[in-house]
Amino acid sequence: MVVVMAPEATESDIEEIVDLVNAAGGEAFVSRGVSRTIIGLVGDVEQFGALNLRSYPGVSDVVRISVPYKLVSREHHPNRSVITVGGVPIGPGHLTVIAGPCTVETAEQTLAAARMAQTAGASVLRGGAFKPRTSPYAFQGLGEAGLRILADVRAETGLPVVTEVIDPASVDLVSSYADMLQVGTRSMQNFALLQAVGSANKPVLLKRGMNATIEEWLMAAEYIAQRGNLDIVLCERGIRTFETATRNTLDISAVPVAQRLSHLPVIIDPSHSGGRRDLVLPLSRAAVAVGADGIIVDVHPHPAAAMCDGDQALTGEDIRDLAEMAATLPQLLGRTLTPAPRPVTGAAKLPTGLDASLV
Amino acid sequence: MVVVMAPEATESDIEEIVDLVNAAGGEAFVSRGVSRTIIGLVGDVEQFGALNLRSYPGVSDVVRISVPYKLVSREHHPNRSVITVGGVPIGPGHLTVIAGPCTVETAEQTLAAARMAQTAGASVLRGGAFKPRTSPYAFQGLGEAGLRILADVRAETGLPVVTEVIDPASVDLVSSYADMLQVGTRSMQNFALLQAVGSANKPVLLKRGMNATIEEWLMAAEYIAQRGNLDIVLCERGIRTFETATRNTLDISAVPVAQRLSHLPVIIDPSHSGGRRDLVLPLSRAAVAVGADGIIVDVHPHPAAAMCDGDQALTGEDIRDLAEMAATLPQLLGRTLTPAPRPVTGAAKLPTGLDASLV
Amino acid sequence: MVVVMAPEATESDIEEIVDLVNAAGGEAFVSRGVSRTIIGLVGDVEQFGALNLRSYPGVSDVVRISVPYKLVSREHHPNRSVITVGGVPIGPGHLTVIAGPCTVETAEQTLAAARMAQTAGASVLRGGAFKPRTSPYAFQGLGEAGLRILADVRAETGLPVVTEVIDPASVDLVSSYADMLQVGTRSMQNFALLQAVGSANKPVLLKRGMNATIEEWLMAAEYIAQRGNLDIVLCERGIRTFETATRNTLDISAVPVAQRLSHLPVIIDPSHSGGRRDLVLPLSRAAVAVGADGIIVDVHPHPAAAMCDGDQALTGEDIRDLAEMAATLPQLLGRTLTPAPRPVTGAAKLPTGLDASLV
Amino acid sequence: MVVVMAPEATESDIEEIVDLVNAAGGEAFVSRGVSRTIIGLVGDVEQFGALNLRSYPGVSDVVRISVPYKLVSREHHPNRSVITVGGVPIGPGHLTVIAGPCTVETAEQTLAAARMAQTAGASVLRGGAFKPRTSPYAFQGLGEAGLRILADVRAETGLPVVTEVIDPASVDLVSSYADMLQVGTRSMQNFALLQAVGSANKPVLLKRGMNATIEEWLMAAEYIAQRGNLDIVLCERGIRTFETATRNTLDISAVPVAQRLSHLPVIIDPSHSGGRRDLVLPLSRAAVAVGADGIIVDVHPHPAAAMCDGDQALTGEDIRDLAEMAATLPQLLGRTLTPAPRPVTGAAKLPTGLDASLV
Repeated sequence: MVVVMAPEATESDIEEIVDLVNAAGGEAFVSRGVSRTIIGLVGDVEQFGALNLRSYPGVSDVVRISVPYKLVSREHHPNRSVITVGGVPIGPGHLTVIAGPCTVETAEQTLAAARMAQTAGASVLRGGAFKPRTSPYAFQGLGEAGLRILADVRAETGLPVVTEVIDPASVDLVSSYADMLQVGTRSMQNFALLQAVGSANKPVLLKRGMNATIEEWLMAAEYIAQRGNLDIVLCERGIRTFETATRNTLDISAVPVAQRLSHLPVIIDPSHSGGRRDLVLPLSRAAVAVGADGIIVDVHPHPAAAMCDGDQALTGEDIRDLAEMAATLPQLLGRTLTPAPRPVTGAAKLPTGLDASLV
Repeated sequence: MVVVMAPEATESDIEEIVDLVNAAGGEAFVSRGVSRTIIGLVGDVEQFGALNLRSYPGVSDVVRISVPYKLVSREHHPNRSVITVGGVPIGPGHLTVIAGPCTVETAEQTLAAARMAQTAGASVLRGGAFKPRTSPYAFQGLGEAGLRILADVRAETGLPVVTEVIDPASVDLVSSYADMLQVGTRSMQNFALLQAVGSANKPVLLKRGMNATIEEWLMAAEYIAQRGNLDIVLCERGIRTFETATRNTLDISAVPVAQRLSHLPVIIDPSHSGGRRDLVLPLSRAAVAVGADGIIVDVHPHPAAAMCDGDQALTGEDIRDLAEMAATLPQLLGRTLTPAPRPVTGAAKLPTGLDASLV
Repeated sequence: MVVVMAPEATESDIEEIVDLVNAAGGEAFVSRGVSRTIIGLVGDVEQFGALNLRSYPGVSDVVRISVPYKLVSREHHPNRSVITVGGVPIGPGHLTVIAGPCTVETAEQTLAAARMAQTAGASVLRGGAFKPRTSPYAFQGLGEAGLRILADVRAETGLPVVTEVIDPASVDLVSSYADMLQVGTRSMQNFALLQAVGSANKPVLLKRGMNATIEEWLMAAEYIAQRGNLDIVLCERGIRTFETATRNTLDISAVPVAQRLSHLPVIIDPSHSGGRRDLVLPLSRAAVAVGADGIIVDVHPHPAAAMCDGDQALTGEDIRDLAEMAATLPQLLGRTLTPAPRPVTGAAKLPTGLDASLV
Repeated sequence: MVVVMAPEATESDIEEIVDLVNAAGGEAFVSRGVSRTIIGLVGDVEQFGALNLRSYPGVSDVVRISVPYKLVSREHHPNRSVITVGGVPIGPGHLTVIAGPCTVETAEQTLAAARMAQTAGASVLRGGAFKPRTSPYAFQGLGEAGLRILADVRAETGLPVVTEVIDPASVDLVSSYADMLQVGTRSMQNFALLQAVGSANKPVLLKRGMNATIEEWLMAAEYIAQRGNLDIVLCERGIRTFETATRNTLDISAVPVAQRLSHLPVIIDPSHSGGRRDLVLPLSRAAVAVGADGIIVDVHPHPAAAMCDGDQALTGEDIRDLAEMAATLPQLLGRTLTPAPRPVTGAAKLPTGLDASLV
């Protein structure tokens, strides 16, 4: 931490800061310049933060130097981590495709989407049962009924399931069905929720807040990690900017930046960032090429009938194009496409009455 | 709603849209231009939204025309509302000052801050007991002990209390102490929380998300209103932009814009937007001058010792300057400074051991 | 300047930096922390910048501490400046209203707008003859014919004239008619233009770039000052953010921030920031209240017939409201409304055929 | 164009708009909804724009539907264009690498950088002789001496040259040396410059303004095209957002979006967007994968000694990595790496005294 003194700071202003730092158990190194003096602080940053040094006379600015996160930082954990979701790895060396419907609507639609996901190269199924919607009048998801459908489709296809949790009170419920808990972009600084998923015994997919800096994103991960859960996958999904041609602006640079700062895997959501079907495939290719550890993509058997975000769901030929990309591009970049697990033989078969022959 | 057809759209593409709209119980008016055709939709917008019209062949864009909120809209409620908090009015004709410490630290500090607030012209006390902090290592507030201090200080001073609630699970607890529930900027799209405060029987101070458009802010208010609670005060507190000279960029235009769109009162937080003590007074004056219905300001008896945001808390002479502003500027703009209520005689006196003679 | 070493930096990495700094004539103060070392540099910042220290092994970051501008800085010129435009002062103690049409269309329209400006309390006339337009198909201004109209209206009304210059090649031409040269928001980093107006013998109104930080704005002013022209007035006119309810987001905090960093006067343009007539008056009040040294406002006798930005021009009753505000609010804040100068007797009367009796 | 009437608009308000549109030679289609009426306008949009319809009573909003550019639009020119620069193609089917030093410093440095560029797979040389710098105290480029060096290095290597022009007055000078004129990010709305390069007989590299929407970028291209020059290559180079971890945020989605809206080629600058050497290669891969028609990259023989942007210049092993990427990735995406042209035999050899044996 560096304290920048104002040009008009007096010698006693400087001494006061040095004394405060010493009293807090730190060391202060004074650099006296022609126009101003700076003081380098060595010691416990949290301690220094509590000193409110900016409030003292003669202080012009206080600049933090070190990163404020620890457990998720690469400084203390130089090797990048591989996280496992229902047996499926996400991390360096792998390229993992997660796909499925934005929202679970029916058993048939979800199974059909899961089959499309498999065709596209996916090894994990996504699907929303609890939906955070901007409008109170919009469809809010099937809730537990949706979770049950996801579990049935997992039994049928073998794909582990990631689904969003939007409220600390439902973390236990969602954990009882899902293989991975998703924290959505609007919840990235819902600290009660972060603590709750940090205590659940499941890997977490942490989407970046659409207004969050990379540092805040890593701090949100630190909240989860602090509760003992380091099975976190970061997901860049577009940030809010002045540009209105796309729903959000995919911050593709966030992938190498976050991978350098943190040991956690980083994936990209090309569907929600662009909000347009025609952007999903180019952005997926860019995601793989930039070095993302995976992508998460919306697919839907009948996008025009989708209850949420139908405009961006892949379908038909798109699926083949995605599959072709997934089959060729990762290996050029030293990664292996993560294969889909096989369904467990004898798994419970579709207790909700799903007729697989339909799809 | 307007559907914009692509230049290459065929006649049957246009007919398909018209048929869909008719089938959904709406009417479609076709305007055929030289280069493209647009179709105006009349009827239930929610219905049309579910049609995913953007997914149909020949459709280039779908433009929403009407506002997506109803209960908080001024269209259906032309007169601006006055909300009452523990007897204190907020709304047109009034200028209400809310002040207090960012965080409740001790009974002494809170009472001292409340006395400063009264001196500054405040009629409502603010103070945080549950603090949403970016870092899991930062002080997270006193919790219920903080709520108890706030209630004691209310008994001593007569000032009704607004305090933040960060989790649906603690809405009942906070409601049992507070006169008004604050939903913070990071929680503006915590929909479970919005629904919970919508069901609590308390007025709500809804801070704008630092990344939220005015429309999203009003949609968040609609969530609360939809649960039956229309006692909502909107609070602009700065948005996130590229400018780093201030913590956030106070969007002062949001006040007249939101007041035109919604009947709810709108106030400004000059402390958190700027994040710097020297900006609080100029921004407070600007807030009153632009037509805000109130301001909410951090004060602290010893900012350098504050556990949170000490850099922005007013103290000493600032208090007198704020008081002078509050005494003169509102009346020039046709508003009356809301007087502070008097303490109820015989109210419970400081059961937490607060020694008022100290302050 | 502070060099932050990476945790893995070696002792010889640190020594290399110290040697480079010493060789460049500076001093290096090393603060060795537990997790990382920082080096404070004392000396000539420009020299250090040329060292590309960030390129050296073991360097994690280089943080600039001091401001990069000098001539416009308040550090070297503590008292805020008053700039004079055709005898009219702009700066501390004064509140100067500049008003007029966005675009000069005809002599009659310009004179009528100038009379409205006077009624509203203006002492300087604005009006565009060279218009920077986003579309090549939009009206680009009358050019020199517009400048002649402005000069005629000045002769008739006595109001000094500020008008935009968009090209270094036309600085001489515009200077031969105008009392003050405006550099528009899109030209703020047109460095050739900044240098040209820096060499012209006229005061300059420097609008902030809609994407410019306050520091970049002051650097643009430094370009002008470096050529010997310190008669610069800064104008905040809204920045580009994600919010679309207003054309731009007026950064009202920029006024006190820029006034603290620079000795130059700072005014606000409430017309172009909001882009809506109904926002002009509230934002004008906020501008005065926050401490701006003036405002610049669009007025038009017939906004619906305006060739540019008719949506935001004040007219009719708005003018009276603005006049009332200008007559009352500044004095509450310790400022005097700058009176309009009187026309010089015997000044050339309307050689373009302007018939003043029409208006 | 669609006019949205306010809920309180009267029948005569609606008729007035219809009459105005008819009088302007257009047609108005009225859609009467329950809560509001919309009017679809068919005819000449420029005409309608001049009507200032937003200023009329009862009008709530005016929404433009069609795009405001024509010559660069894909609507009127469905096939994407290939632009040729000194014989080198840029456009669909090709992947063109442009590389070179940010700034021309010496003949030796420029030739060495050009050799590095060739090694990396480049077929066009970049290099700045006129530098737009935020600080008036920073190095502003060698000017014509730099242009001469570029021409010499072209003669030596065969690489055509793209270099920036920052002032209309120097367009002729720069055109006499360069094969392609670059309009930089800060000049994107320097309309006098756009018109000047539109009249020069050279292809133009138009960088996106760091604050410009894609639509504004295409409007800037339209300015150039309107002067008769359609040889324009668009270059995305990062936009300004709240994120500070990178210098700017590369808007990778802008490539497919702009390619869909315009027939012009679109390339990416991975060096200036990230501002960090370690991001250049991942972003280059992402650029190729997303479908960009090329990349433009900074290289420097001795980055630590660079006079500008040394932090981002590739050198040493990076060059080999870039070459390997350029050799493998384009063909996977159906593109051919554009080969470098050979030097013309007998071309003037290094009249500035450049000693090629040095490099």
